[in-house]
Amino acid sequence: MPRPDLLQRLDVQTAEREHARLHRRLRTIEHADGPWLESGSRRLLSFCSNDYLGLAQHPTLVAALTRAAGEQGVGSTSAHLICGHRAVHAQLEEALAAWTGRERALLFSTGYMANLGVLQALLARGDVCVQDKLDHACLLDGARLSGAELKRYPHADVAAAARQLAAHPEAAALLATDGVFSMDGDIAPLRALAQLCARERATLMVDDAHGLGVLGDDGAGSLSAAKLGQHEVPLLMGTLGKALGCSGAFVAGPAALIEGLIQFARPYIYTTAIPPALAAAALESVRLAQTETWRRDKLAALVARFRAGAAQLGLPLMDSASAIQPLLLRSADAALAAAQALEHRGLLVVAIRPPTVPVGQARLRITLSAAHEEAHVDALLDALADLAQGSRVAGHV
Amino acid sequence: MPRPDLLQRLDVQTAEREHARLHRRLRTIEHADGPWLESGSRRLLSFCSNDYLGLAQHPTLVAALTRAAGEQGVGSTSAHLICGHRAVHAQLEEALAAWTGRERALLFSTGYMANLGVLQALLARGDVCVQDKLDHACLLDGARLSGAELKRYPHADVAAAARQLAAHPEAAALLATDGVFSMDGDIAPLRALAQLCARERATLMVDDAHGLGVLGDDGAGSLSAAKLGQHEVPLLMGTLGKALGCSGAFVAGPAALIEGLIQFARPYIYTTAIPPALAAAALESVRLAQTETWRRDKLAALVARFRAGAAQLGLPLMDSASAIQPLLLRSADAALAAAQALEHRGLLVVAIRPPTVPVGQARLRITLSAAHEEAHVDALLDALADLAQGSRVAGHV
Repeated sequence: MPRPDLLQRLDVQTAEREHARLHRRLRTIEHADGPWLESGSRRLLSFCSNDYLGLAQHPTLVAALTRAAGEQGVGSTSAHLICGHRAVHAQLEEALAAWTGRERALLFSTGYMANLGVLQALLARGDVCVQDKLDHACLLDGARLSGAELKRYPHADVAAAARQLAAHPEAAALLATDGVFSMDGDIAPLRALAQLCARERATLMVDDAHGLGVLGDDGAGSLSAAKLGQHEVPLLMGTLGKALGCSGAFVAGPAALIEGLIQFARPYIYTTAIPPALAAAALESVRLAQTETWRRDKLAALVARFRAGAAQLGLPLMDSASAIQPLLLRSADAALAAAQALEHRGLLVVAIRPPTVPVGQARLRITLSAAHEEAHVDALLDALADLAQGSRVAGHV
Repeated sequence: MPRPDLLQRLDVQTAEREHARLHRRLRTIEHADGPWLESGSRRLLSFCSNDYLGLAQHPTLVAALTRAAGEQGVGSTSAHLICGHRAVHAQLEEALAAWTGRERALLFSTGYMANLGVLQALLARGDVCVQDKLDHACLLDGARLSGAELKRYPHADVAAAARQLAAHPEAAALLATDGVFSMDGDIAPLRALAQLCARERATLMVDDAHGLGVLGDDGAGSLSAAKLGQHEVPLLMGTLGKALGCSGAFVAGPAALIEGLIQFARPYIYTTAIPPALAAAALESVRLAQTETWRRDKLAALVARFRAGAAQLGLPLMDSASAIQPLLLRSADAALAAAQALEHRGLLVVAIRPPTVPVGQARLRITLSAAHEEAHVDALLDALADLAQGSRVAGHV
């Protein structure tokens, strides 16, 4: 048998996905102005960004980026451990640690790299990594890279997680969960998981990419809302590219842990530090996320308004208290058709289909932001009401 | 046996590394001005950045970043496939494809994520991934994640690579190599590897992080210098954070390959797109790297000057024609002591020690840049001469 060609094989896989109508298409955004996007010369009201607090275009962030770039240029020119670690990186790390109530924080280029770095540095063959089935792709990849045995429990099922830990009583164990699940919007049973980990001597890691900035009175995320400190949750990962409106990520936790990551986390050691100007913008963003509490209040009010309206319409709302408010349409074709119908009305909502979600669980992933107004939510509800009426299927958009 | 505690285990590993004097320490840079860095209130002339063309602080890049941020804000607010793909991302991808002579290019947040994405999308269990032993950490991690069998051949040993491929005649095969090796500075035997891959129907992938911008008359990197097109090397990875002075990375190759990555590369799909303002800066940088050819000429002249001087002093130069000019001191303690002595004289050169390089191969990693002047190189040579005399060991700094 001749050696198969890798590129041909990939082409076949792409064609199969197209055939199954699960192909993904890039949409180019020509201009963004808050929740308004221009694409294909059309103006669309977007409900799909992760800019939950509406900070991505805030003049203070732009000014900080501009000022820092004027002083320090664009690239950091090196890895942190060579000569890429600027004072503003250190300041941002301190601000993130203080905000999240952790001893120390460490910057990574992306949440993907942060999660890979943590799991690879901490885990090894013979260990066990227990994860929620709906955890983000990079937590799965990190566990695979580490060589530990990966056990995935049914979504939010603490008893199942407990059984998985109990089945490996002598293995070093890490339990990793999203704080807010990215495609569902619900919050992990964090207090129960923390109790389980304490009982089982397992280390708890929370990826709070979609909770930071949004949850907790201080905006410090799902752990703040659940009143869980560093002792209960030593590993907190947060990103700078969602509610904080920038780019990059961090891990916060005990000082010794951070020191260990500096020594052993490959995606920290072997990559270029993020541009100092981006760190300067994120530093302002952390400040605004703490002080401009009206953004969280406004977002919460918009979420409540959307949920009340959607419930009244009998739309298939999922159980979410976060900025992510998916409508579960189940069939991938139905989700795609609904997204297209909304776009026809000038509303951009993305259909999330397999393999991002399990087969039969396709959905519209609606995200709300403090950049939205009540009238925007109402426009979305009106359009969804028309769609629901059009499809004449109760509980189905 | 009670369950071991993961954080305690990491602490022990950190302490062991400290005991072996292989601990890494973060140095905070207070200010950067070309190759001049301020750290601990001292002004140091740096020979450790990857800003090979001296573009990181170029006013044109800063202006592009500032202008784009004023128009579009800081964060992209989403993944490319949701609503994060801006027109400037598309423009940058087109410019990178044109420059490298490839059909199409795709942006990633970092080189780490690009390499993970390519290997994971293309390879699966039962395939074989053949790599140079000195390939970058993320190529190794990518192969591990893919589930393919990883075979590492001795550095630059094409015959050994041929034997590894021949031993798996029916497996789909990918051969991955750095174009310029990051800690050695030498260039891979690219033409011989391309011939081997053509003969063996293996797909060749080149990580040109340290070649792009520096090599080739047009600056398009090691493949341009070796006159190897997309047909011979379908997978080219380049970064925006080294010679281009920004941050981020890309993969360039056949249009169908790029389409396949969009569908299947998890670190492309499940992460926030880089800030549009960074893409705008990188777009200017690509233009400057092509048009300001004097930067490459100046860099090449500085490299030649350094090599001639170092040879005259009998310093342990490695065989490198790139901007990376390491001095092989072998012992980790000797490398650290030399770096400290240089710093005493106001010169910043980083000691590279195990595990980044094999035991017994510690070195000073000296990098040159078009931002340096002849006098800077001479100052470095003077300091190295004094060190060599001080140690009174010929061929040893």
